[in-house]
Amino acid sequence: MRSFDKEKYMEMGKIVQSKKGELEAIAAKIYADGVKSIFFTGVGGTTAEFTSVKKVVETRTQLPVYCVNAAELMLEGNTQLNKDSIVITGSKSGDTKETVAVAKWCRERGIKVAVITKENTPLCEQADYLCTMDTTGVENTYLSFYYIVLKLLNLRGEFDEYDEFAAAMENVHESLVKVKEKFGPVAAAIAKKTYKEPYQIWIGSGSIWGDIYMFTMCILEEMQWKRTKAVSSPEFFHGTLELVDEDTQVFLVKGVDSCRPLDERVEKFLNEYAEKKVIIDLADYKLDGVDDKFADIVSPMVAETILTGCLAAHVEHHTGHSLDFRRYYRQFDY
Amino acid sequence: MRSFDKEKYMEMGKIVQSKKGELEAIAAKIYADGVKSIFFTGVGGTTAEFTSVKKVVETRTQLPVYCVNAAELMLEGNTQLNKDSIVITGSKSGDTKETVAVAKWCRERGIKVAVITKENTPLCEQADYLCTMDTTGVENTYLSFYYIVLKLLNLRGEFDEYDEFAAAMENVHESLVKVKEKFGPVAAAIAKKTYKEPYQIWIGSGSIWGDIYMFTMCILEEMQWKRTKAVSSPEFFHGTLELVDEDTQVFLVKGVDSCRPLDERVEKFLNEYAEKKVIIDLADYKLDGVDDKFADIVSPMVAETILTGCLAAHVEHHTGHSLDFRRYYRQFDY
Repeated sequence: MRSFDKEKYMEMGKIVQSKKGELEAIAAKIYADGVKSIFFTGVGGTTAEFTSVKKVVETRTQLPVYCVNAAELMLEGNTQLNKDSIVITGSKSGDTKETVAVAKWCRERGIKVAVITKENTPLCEQADYLCTMDTTGVENTYLSFYYIVLKLLNLRGEFDEYDEFAAAMENVHESLVKVKEKFGPVAAAIAKKTYKEPYQIWIGSGSIWGDIYMFTMCILEEMQWKRTKAVSSPEFFHGTLELVDEDTQVFLVKGVDSCRPLDERVEKFLNEYAEKKVIIDLADYKLDGVDDKFADIVSPMVAETILTGCLAAHVEHHTGHSLDFRRYYRQFDY
Repeated sequence: MRSFDKEKYMEMGKIVQSKKGELEAIAAKIYADGVKSIFFTGVGGTTAEFTSVKKVVETRTQLPVYCVNAAELMLEGNTQLNKDSIVITGSKSGDTKETVAVAKWCRERGIKVAVITKENTPLCEQADYLCTMDTTGVENTYLSFYYIVLKLLNLRGEFDEYDEFAAAMENVHESLVKVKEKFGPVAAAIAKKTYKEPYQIWIGSGSIWGDIYMFTMCILEEMQWKRTKAVSSPEFFHGTLELVDEDTQVFLVKGVDSCRPLDERVEKFLNEYAEKKVIIDLADYKLDGVDDKFADIVSPMVAETILTGCLAAHVEHHTGHSLDFRRYYRQFDY
């Protein structure tokens, strides 16, 4: 596989697993605090990740769960956010401006903040509950947050399968590599066929909607300067469908959660009317050793492994446009 | 102004005003029911409208307020939705498939549904609280829902200014026409300058974010077959900004609510780096007779009046592409 270092990947997995106890301990503290609502907050990629995590959590808990953009939260406030809330945030770099600011803003209001980020960074100083980690791979971000939030649900009696889930996660990186290996040739073919497309519509739903948003905005737009439209499977039929013609490149990622019928409806439409289409079905990329009842939980991990963690490198190979280059982002203050 | 019939417009306004008492009576019934949460639901344009209404409501009430896509709600359920919730929905045509289905789905679960729609349509049959109306203009949709939800907040002691607001709304259509008239030449110039752009980035935030989503998807994509990217002002800086170059057409609609600093940040960036840009500042289109403290409430009405209700017709004039034509939507079942 292109740009893939299996040894390093497995090492990252070990780092996350080594933090499991620490993350579960954070869950225990949040539970002991008697939390009454969960707020995920961040910006950009982090918001996208939390969009997916929110879906996974909110369908299983009686707690209200919110996902709010950090910059907006500080300006608008939120009447549901109070001292009984837990704010959960993270940042790979640990210095994302709005994320550091929102954590500080919450704590100034007596609201506790749980953070996963890199050691010795500004965000660490704004955490009530902190776990430091320096990993790559969005699937590891997901797993880390799951060890907090799904454990919390378990303590609340809302996710009895937690131990079974956690046991399945012990070898999940082996399974993720297998999925990557299976998707590799598919990614190579997709990239070769579509890399010149200056505009791409990406469609998905359910627990991977956040990943569709992420891949289009944080990878294709930010790192490949490709024009994109991300639209959810149900919303596709209320506007964007009219763009489908013989020239327009459309991608559909079919999920394996309760929203799958909405993806199938899009697939039927695309098969009828779209000439340039790529349909990726997550049913073809199930993780060994993970029960189907956890499908919606692990789907975002799988989606990231095959898109951000695999397809991106193949697109880069064909476009020659480095994934590392930015002309604006972090090049100056804004 | 292009495609604008003032007499008809004022007539529509009278229809909405004539329904005020009926809409407030729905609020009183919801209040008497002891509502504990508000769910806005619908699809496409209706979801977009509710995205804006939700912002207006949630910043003023202690009730949790949700906005969910109708198709997703039926498949995923929602743990916060129960017999103490009120579900609010609407449909211009009264036969939008998912909207009719979700109302039925809610009522089967003992959850009350408040509806604004057209007389003698399938959606009417699925309403606990119904107000029928056959109006055009999204600003009228907003005002109609405001007469329910802001009155409800008033009854709850959360919006003491309701009577002042309602009094200001009595002549709001005159003020909206003035705004339209002021924006007319601006719209003509914008349309002439940008109508050939095959791809447009649209940016906004706060209470008009739903309108940015709406105008790009339901007007430019659905009715003009233009490729678009709608991105909120805070999220713009986390991916989409990298697309800005000398060829890319960018639109920013600056709002006048608490999120305005986020729009100003985008404006600063665009002034530095974007060659093809259109910046529309809602501060230039304030409604006569409406106090600034209601700015976030009336902003979606203003945004729709100048975009969907004015700019769209000017774009149509230049592209020659009829706003009425669809190649797929409502042409067949999906």
